[in-house]
Amino acid sequence: MVSSTTTFSVPTRRKNEMIDITGSVRDIVRRHGIKSGICTVFVPHTTAAVTINENADPDVPRDILVALERIVPREGDYAHSEGNSPAHVKALLTGSSVTVTVEAGKIQLGTWQGIFFCEFDGPRNRQVRVTVLGESAASS
Amino acid sequence: MVSSTTTFSVPTRRKNEMIDITGSVRDIVRRHGIKSGICTVFVPHTTAAVTINENADPDVPRDILVALERIVPREGDYAHSEGNSPAHVKALLTGSSVTVTVEAGKIQLGTWQGIFFCEFDGPRNRQVRVTVLGESAASS
Amino acid sequence: MVSSTTTFSVPTRRKNEMIDITGSVRDIVRRHGIKSGICTVFVPHTTAAVTINENADPDVPRDILVALERIVPREGDYAHSEGNSPAHVKALLTGSSVTVTVEAGKIQLGTWQGIFFCEFDGPRNRQVRVTVLGESAASS
Repeated sequence: MVSSTTTFSVPTRRKNEMIDITGSVRDIVRRHGIKSGICTVFVPHTTAAVTINENADPDVPRDILVALERIVPREGDYAHSEGNSPAHVKALLTGSSVTVTVEAGKIQLGTWQGIFFCEFDGPRNRQVRVTVLGESAASS
Repeated sequence: MVSSTTTFSVPTRRKNEMIDITGSVRDIVRRHGIKSGICTVFVPHTTAAVTINENADPDVPRDILVALERIVPREGDYAHSEGNSPAHVKALLTGSSVTVTVEAGKIQLGTWQGIFFCEFDGPRNRQVRVTVLGESAASS
Repeated sequence: MVSSTTTFSVPTRRKNEMIDITGSVRDIVRRHGIKSGICTVFVPHTTAAVTINENADPDVPRDILVALERIVPREGDYAHSEGNSPAHVKALLTGSSVTVTVEAGKIQLGTWQGIFFCEFDGPRNRQVRVTVLGESAASS
């Protein structure tokens, strides 16, 4: 069995931003050469998140960020002194990890799916951890 | 170690719909006969999702769909030309996968829990992928 | 490979509450001594959930619970006769499991991250299941 974690950086440039990291995740998974298993993409932050959604039309992430801004308005009943509570709530709604199937060394995403790093309190330099877990091709 | 992915189809009949797929997932896990491990149920779509919730009273999924419709209204500030941005937002809020513990060959759900495929832009013919990962009963 | 599930209880005291369970999860993972892998924390309930967020300032969970109460109001178009549909919706938005990387026997959380049990229909006595999956230190 192979179990390995690789970390990479994602510099963000805006307060709210969705960045397509599918290529980076795909490369990491390919290098580990597992025959079959899962890949977990984890964000070690509390005002950022990771999700899977359409990466064909840039209007989709745009619409998602606008909708999240309406669901979790910047102004509200927030006590946290840092002033970034809306970002913490958006992180909860979106989630801190995604898990994807790996077959024949490749992550198995649907036709329109991409993996997005979601920044809700940028700009910052962020980290993403990719854990690959499964049967190695060599042991089959 | 066993790692195996099985795909099955879910035909949906309405625009918004929650379909109980617990039995199908349970059957797939049972067939792989792992002693202990995890099962990940993944939806390869961007306007559908998967979640775990109560499958005893059909009013619970009904209330969830009504609440999601209020949180993400059909009309709004959406730029995506396909017109299904609310479905993309609902998919983000709900999630593209669930992970459940497997013990003695069975998925370990709580008393009231069922696994639901969530359609937000139907009707369509959809896919669900079930990955089983763990120690095989044979190797123990 | 090691695959093992441990269950522990979480007594809750309020209707809505976020309880930091990081220490309990960390102890369970440490006891299994895996070199590398993942840890999945699963909640077998439909009106409670689990999430990862900031555990430094108690105002963060407080702000999250207030925001969820606004996003999913107690009064609304709910048909479920038990009257706890808002709790079912909050559980869907938050999620029934989190998955974290394990390296050198330790869960790899970010600096500000803690794992929270989220009660949305308490007070009750709740359960949490922790599954550890990965390469054992002994087999390396």
